[in-house]
Amino acid sequence: MSQENLVYLKGELRPASSAHIAIYDAAVVLGATVTDLARTFRGELYRLQDHVDRFYRSCRYTRIEPRIGPEQTMDICRELVANNLAVVLFISPGEFAVYAGAAGMAGDQEPTFCIHTFPLPFSLWAPYFTEGVHVVTPSVRQVPPVCVDPKIKCRSRMHWWLADQETHLVDPQAVSLCLDLDGNVTETSGSNFLIVSDGAVICPSQRSILRGISLETVAEICGELRIPFIERDFQVYDVVNADEAFLTTTPYCMAPVTRINGLPIGDGLPGVLFAKLIAAWGERVGIDIAAQVRGEVLSG
Amino acid sequence: MSQENLVYLKGELRPASSAHIAIYDAAVVLGATVTDLARTFRGELYRLQDHVDRFYRSCRYTRIEPRIGPEQTMDICRELVANNLAVVLFISPGEFAVYAGAAGMAGDQEPTFCIHTFPLPFSLWAPYFTEGVHVVTPSVRQVPPVCVDPKIKCRSRMHWWLADQETHLVDPQAVSLCLDLDGNVTETSGSNFLIVSDGAVICPSQRSILRGISLETVAEICGELRIPFIERDFQVYDVVNADEAFLTTTPYCMAPVTRINGLPIGDGLPGVLFAKLIAAWGERVGIDIAAQVRGEVLSG
Amino acid sequence: MSQENLVYLKGELRPASSAHIAIYDAAVVLGATVTDLARTFRGELYRLQDHVDRFYRSCRYTRIEPRIGPEQTMDICRELVANNLAVVLFISPGEFAVYAGAAGMAGDQEPTFCIHTFPLPFSLWAPYFTEGVHVVTPSVRQVPPVCVDPKIKCRSRMHWWLADQETHLVDPQAVSLCLDLDGNVTETSGSNFLIVSDGAVICPSQRSILRGISLETVAEICGELRIPFIERDFQVYDVVNADEAFLTTTPYCMAPVTRINGLPIGDGLPGVLFAKLIAAWGERVGIDIAAQVRGEVLSG
Amino acid sequence: MSQENLVYLKGELRPASSAHIAIYDAAVVLGATVTDLARTFRGELYRLQDHVDRFYRSCRYTRIEPRIGPEQTMDICRELVANNLAVVLFISPGEFAVYAGAAGMAGDQEPTFCIHTFPLPFSLWAPYFTEGVHVVTPSVRQVPPVCVDPKIKCRSRMHWWLADQETHLVDPQAVSLCLDLDGNVTETSGSNFLIVSDGAVICPSQRSILRGISLETVAEICGELRIPFIERDFQVYDVVNADEAFLTTTPYCMAPVTRINGLPIGDGLPGVLFAKLIAAWGERVGIDIAAQVRGEVLSG
Amino acid sequence: MSQENLVYLKGELRPASSAHIAIYDAAVVLGATVTDLARTFRGELYRLQDHVDRFYRSCRYTRIEPRIGPEQTMDICRELVANNLAVVLFISPGEFAVYAGAAGMAGDQEPTFCIHTFPLPFSLWAPYFTEGVHVVTPSVRQVPPVCVDPKIKCRSRMHWWLADQETHLVDPQAVSLCLDLDGNVTETSGSNFLIVSDGAVICPSQRSILRGISLETVAEICGELRIPFIERDFQVYDVVNADEAFLTTTPYCMAPVTRINGLPIGDGLPGVLFAKLIAAWGERVGIDIAAQVRGEVLSG
Amino acid sequence: MSQENLVYLKGELRPASSAHIAIYDAAVVLGATVTDLARTFRGELYRLQDHVDRFYRSCRYTRIEPRIGPEQTMDICRELVANNLAVVLFISPGEFAVYAGAAGMAGDQEPTFCIHTFPLPFSLWAPYFTEGVHVVTPSVRQVPPVCVDPKIKCRSRMHWWLADQETHLVDPQAVSLCLDLDGNVTETSGSNFLIVSDGAVICPSQRSILRGISLETVAEICGELRIPFIERDFQVYDVVNADEAFLTTTPYCMAPVTRINGLPIGDGLPGVLFAKLIAAWGERVGIDIAAQVRGEVLSG
Repeated sequence: MSQENLVYLKGELRPASSAHIAIYDAAVVLGATVTDLARTFRGELYRLQDHVDRFYRSCRYTRIEPRIGPEQTMDICRELVANNLAVVLFISPGEFAVYAGAAGMAGDQEPTFCIHTFPLPFSLWAPYFTEGVHVVTPSVRQVPPVCVDPKIKCRSRMHWWLADQETHLVDPQAVSLCLDLDGNVTETSGSNFLIVSDGAVICPSQRSILRGISLETVAEICGELRIPFIERDFQVYDVVNADEAFLTTTPYCMAPVTRINGLPIGDGLPGVLFAKLIAAWGERVGIDIAAQVRGEVLSG
Repeated sequence: MSQENLVYLKGELRPASSAHIAIYDAAVVLGATVTDLARTFRGELYRLQDHVDRFYRSCRYTRIEPRIGPEQTMDICRELVANNLAVVLFISPGEFAVYAGAAGMAGDQEPTFCIHTFPLPFSLWAPYFTEGVHVVTPSVRQVPPVCVDPKIKCRSRMHWWLADQETHLVDPQAVSLCLDLDGNVTETSGSNFLIVSDGAVICPSQRSILRGISLETVAEICGELRIPFIERDFQVYDVVNADEAFLTTTPYCMAPVTRINGLPIGDGLPGVLFAKLIAAWGERVGIDIAAQVRGEVLSG
Repeated sequence: MSQENLVYLKGELRPASSAHIAIYDAAVVLGATVTDLARTFRGELYRLQDHVDRFYRSCRYTRIEPRIGPEQTMDICRELVANNLAVVLFISPGEFAVYAGAAGMAGDQEPTFCIHTFPLPFSLWAPYFTEGVHVVTPSVRQVPPVCVDPKIKCRSRMHWWLADQETHLVDPQAVSLCLDLDGNVTETSGSNFLIVSDGAVICPSQRSILRGISLETVAEICGELRIPFIERDFQVYDVVNADEAFLTTTPYCMAPVTRINGLPIGDGLPGVLFAKLIAAWGERVGIDIAAQVRGEVLSG
Repeated sequence: MSQENLVYLKGELRPASSAHIAIYDAAVVLGATVTDLARTFRGELYRLQDHVDRFYRSCRYTRIEPRIGPEQTMDICRELVANNLAVVLFISPGEFAVYAGAAGMAGDQEPTFCIHTFPLPFSLWAPYFTEGVHVVTPSVRQVPPVCVDPKIKCRSRMHWWLADQETHLVDPQAVSLCLDLDGNVTETSGSNFLIVSDGAVICPSQRSILRGISLETVAEICGELRIPFIERDFQVYDVVNADEAFLTTTPYCMAPVTRINGLPIGDGLPGVLFAKLIAAWGERVGIDIAAQVRGEVLSG
Repeated sequence: MSQENLVYLKGELRPASSAHIAIYDAAVVLGATVTDLARTFRGELYRLQDHVDRFYRSCRYTRIEPRIGPEQTMDICRELVANNLAVVLFISPGEFAVYAGAAGMAGDQEPTFCIHTFPLPFSLWAPYFTEGVHVVTPSVRQVPPVCVDPKIKCRSRMHWWLADQETHLVDPQAVSLCLDLDGNVTETSGSNFLIVSDGAVICPSQRSILRGISLETVAEICGELRIPFIERDFQVYDVVNADEAFLTTTPYCMAPVTRINGLPIGDGLPGVLFAKLIAAWGERVGIDIAAQVRGEVLSG
Repeated sequence: MSQENLVYLKGELRPASSAHIAIYDAAVVLGATVTDLARTFRGELYRLQDHVDRFYRSCRYTRIEPRIGPEQTMDICRELVANNLAVVLFISPGEFAVYAGAAGMAGDQEPTFCIHTFPLPFSLWAPYFTEGVHVVTPSVRQVPPVCVDPKIKCRSRMHWWLADQETHLVDPQAVSLCLDLDGNVTETSGSNFLIVSDGAVICPSQRSILRGISLETVAEICGELRIPFIERDFQVYDVVNADEAFLTTTPYCMAPVTRINGLPIGDGLPGVLFAKLIAAWGERVGIDIAAQVRGEVLSG
């Protein structure tokens, strides 16, 4: 990265190395940040409109109002990205006046809106595509929607940090799969979680999960391939006895899950339907996604 | 404040204006920050050991390990403060490697440990001491301990932000008083909440609240004055029909609560027991606390 | 109303002004009353059979047995009504023997069955059709089905009274929209609540709501117009980000909801689909319903 | 009752036979009524101040405002009662304007405040003192405080009616003892429920019960007799294995509970501690209470 | 039964009278046993593969590993059965080493795997087919899936034993129908529970029930007969107001439910749809099932 | 053990090797077994009366009636034991008639009552006294009291088996510490769990645990040593930040807990208060208990 990436921060483009957040920012003080993330395929941001729409829905619900609209936001995103880069948006209510030394809580506090890029570190995820992911259910639970609705993509995520501490005791490479307060399977901290049973793809009901845009992509592909796609609550028993399981997420699209709490799912190998779905996705975007993650093809 | 305050950040003291957090910091990315806050009386940090001990308990539970110990932390705190300043400590797991562009999640990631001061903006709270605080119970609930234990002082606080959005519809000056999932009264986003009934001070059970150090100070003072101090679950009915209610918190010690959901508590005026307790506290620290907040005495 | 309306009460028709309930009636003592309500269009009671059937289902579940059957009940209803009148049925277990002074709880206690009419006060609801309804989610929750099933139309409604006290602090004209114990959206005290998202009408699952007959009418009309009608749990986030929302209820059929907790729904104006549905309903009954409520047409 | 009793209703005293409630009253329409009940001993109303204070607390919480104050209310109560009479107070928000035919919801709606007496039908309860009460736990649950707080004495009691339907299938004389949503024992529809274990009287925690004035009387007597009186959650197991159990309530003060779900409690006979407590209560009021209920003494 | 039945136990076939379990077996010590049950029609085990597959799914989830595979298990089942016999499989983790006197918990502990038969005691169930079953909802609740998932067919069933104690107080012939913690209808201890409403068969959602193989047979038959088969949560109200209800279970396939908590379901007689479904099932297996249970035909 | 131990089973004493349970026994079929366990010190059964009383309380609650009384039970226990032996009692409702081939559910079914001994395998527990116990909180939860009350010592324990499967992924030597549905700490499958904080011993509230007799012994010793013994709900945070933790249980009396979820408790070594308490217990029974478990003294 010889030439430094630019970051959009509070109305300005500046070099990444000088893009900082005040220690008094509500992002730091309250964790009251909403966010979104999009990635490129062949240099083009994928479903950018969907990501930005969801970001603005999160803003609306949390009443944090960006000073620019969705169109301008998309323009900035497109300006910042290049091949294999992902773009991150986040916004917080702005600086916390009391700490910042101001005399009062200013009525016209400016939100801290930031857009930055990062290269997709495929090598991190390459093992997911060969061995598959191991998910573990910790004793920590997903925050219920009556506290913070998981449908907003937000960064008040201490429970995920705590969940990971427990999960990594079982397997340092494992990924936390949190249950909700009733014991239903929800999602991981960075992806949606789906199972395959009797030829159908089954997705947790919308109540306890983020409605992922990659999840929707998979639902669309299932529709095209005439694979039933069902939303309903399910539990660990269903995962243990599923035929396959996989994650969906923006950075690496999909990854096979081959173990839960140490037990193999299906035959413990990446599944047939997974392969079919990621291949179909690759056709949509003109890339062999699995090969890209495994580093077998030039990025793009 | 002609001379700029210093901030301790990741092992260095630097001027506040240049104390920044990377946009990739886990404080921003995860809201996975633990914190604490102490204030001075007459230039001395009050119960600093208690605050720093609690901070290290939060660290231990969240497995975020400061690079310096409690003694050195207290030395830095003392070095930074002056009259009427409060000191804030926070720590996050450090920079989020994936976003920061590194090749992997470094094993020896350095936590972001920051200590900074801020002047106590008493004028903000002066109305609390004349009219009393109005608390409102929003529909948003306190995060349950099985997700994030309220006993850790942390900054994953989106639910408080959301609660305030609802509360301010009723009264822009009102303070959110969240109920837990079972409808018990818990705390506000910045203070503990106590009621007085039949001559006893009643405090929510420890399950759903931060064990405040100001709360403990009040419990100690109650012990000295032979006022019963009881811990048990209570509900909005008990607040509506209490004789008094008040907040306890580090910045302004205590404040009377005179209304809940628009209904007066007791006769709707700051209570007699409140006055007695804050006077006793003032004697402990050699300051008329209420007068200080109301701006009637020189700070100190 | 020069000529006084008649009321059916315990087997007799009497003038409304002399139709009273004993202070010892279980309706007063226990709130153990089940009820139903039907209205006329052009002088004819609409879906009277459905209303009376539901009333008898409530009676069956609560084991309060009317002394007359559904057919005779419908005859009485038809006898009582005229243009723009609604008819109310209610029944309680009868007089509470202990208070009434009797020696014991009589085995053959007669239920207090009453049928009365009232003119539809359209002017009250006219603002709903111009500005739309503002719904607010109070901290009070819907009673769960394991205590009193919301599928029985009953009058033990203190929780609605309490909910309204909180809601009216936000906006004296607002309508309470209670959440269930898990934070799902349920209904208002007098109507069902529906949202429109991606072209589909979405209705809370049957678990926590009354199965309204107006709701069923809307479901039927959706079927005819090939608009998807989906039952599933949803939360406040879904309402905030819905395209439209509306109420369904017997007295005024439907009303647009344009705000929730102070936030606009969609563009904050009555929706396109709402207009389409109420127009279709009007065609069914030969009346411009919105015009009737706005007082623009003669009642009928 | 040769001479008819008087009833106070909306500011007037009138004969009981003409004291009626409109069918449009909120008492009937919403079940939104709060109430209280006091009895005489030797012609004097017992702890009237406590009952009236609790009634005004219920009013305050529900925001139904009586037009007269506690003092005048007590005067009316005293005027109405004679030997062995109990006095009932209730209040509802008043007539429901929409049904009553008014053009709008009148801002100055008058609450319906009623005070009436009734003779204590001791013969109904005599079997309680010989065989003891049989309590049964139905599948219906106590309404949780976040819907309607049991600390308000209110008449939205459909869940009690439903509970009784199930209980009477087991034993037509049995009394429903509802569990809360977590399975803790709460109270019966008309009394508090206490157990005796290891020499201590144990009372459910205040969260899920009405704080009965008879319960407080028993607590006071326990204090005088140096019998430990403990508040804590308990479950059916504790009742099955208790040494004794009893009810406390205004009309008959106390009654022994000798069976739960068909199983004997202790040896299945009224207990020793019960006898001791009711005797001590009798001394307080100068009456042999058990003998009065059993009809062995002249009322008074 | 002149010739004694054989039992498969830990790898051996032995006469039933000598097939015993050690008092130290985990089946006895922990109740940690998983099980399944299949029956014959005309001498052939019905859907044996489905039953054995489910048994192996239960084993997988509980990590109790049979020493033989599904094929061999099916061979043994077939070898053991004759006309009208049902076959039971169960497995426990094996002997509890501490109690058995061994020095430690042996790593290669052998599971106790047993397969035995029993004649179907149709006379027990004959009244179900003439009068119908009476179900009662006790106060005891179904164990939630986050403790023990009801999808595993296991024998930790103390809650069912306790439920029956309460149910039999209402009617010694009644069958317990447990609610889940949210008050949804689940299943009985030995069968699934379905209702018929508006021409559709409604089944509780999979979360709180065993996915019965007889239930699946009924779902298949509904598909063939074009009867809608719907999965969703329902409550007691829905049962009280259903048109029909019935049980599905391996031993007697189906039985009509005609009463719940003493109230008739529909007209209180076995339903029309029930008759249609069991007739269709009979055609599948070449037996008049109802007649067989009623003893009107020779078994087979 | 040259001479075989005797076992009491259904009224007879027989050699352990021939003491078997029918495969049709309710212990196997339902897991509906209640149990208790007592141990000897110096050849005498310790607090046998307490254990047998608790056993009979469990029987009473579950309505499984032993054919012999507590006195005779104690006589048999005493007859069976010798040095270092523990005695186990269990009872099930008896043989399951349907499986056993009988024509019906016999009214006078005999319960299966068994009393047997086993040597205390101290070597298994010796590491607990040197390194301390590691407890892990799995995602599986304690069964709530409204399903099966933990106050009955019963053997429907599949949830403990499942909990252990997860716990052993973290550490094969670790012990499961289940949380209740609200996230409170409860107990392990074989012992109570206590923490020490600020010089007080803290015990989970009685709602979610077995009231252990060893727990009561510790409470008594605390009373003698003037160490506060407090019952209240606590959470994992409290354990992580406790000064000490330990188990109490009949077989080895007490054991120090030094880690939870991989984190050290206190300094990670067996605690000072633990040593004091077990020493005091040893004085009560005339044995150095820790030395006995570590195998340093002859058993006795």
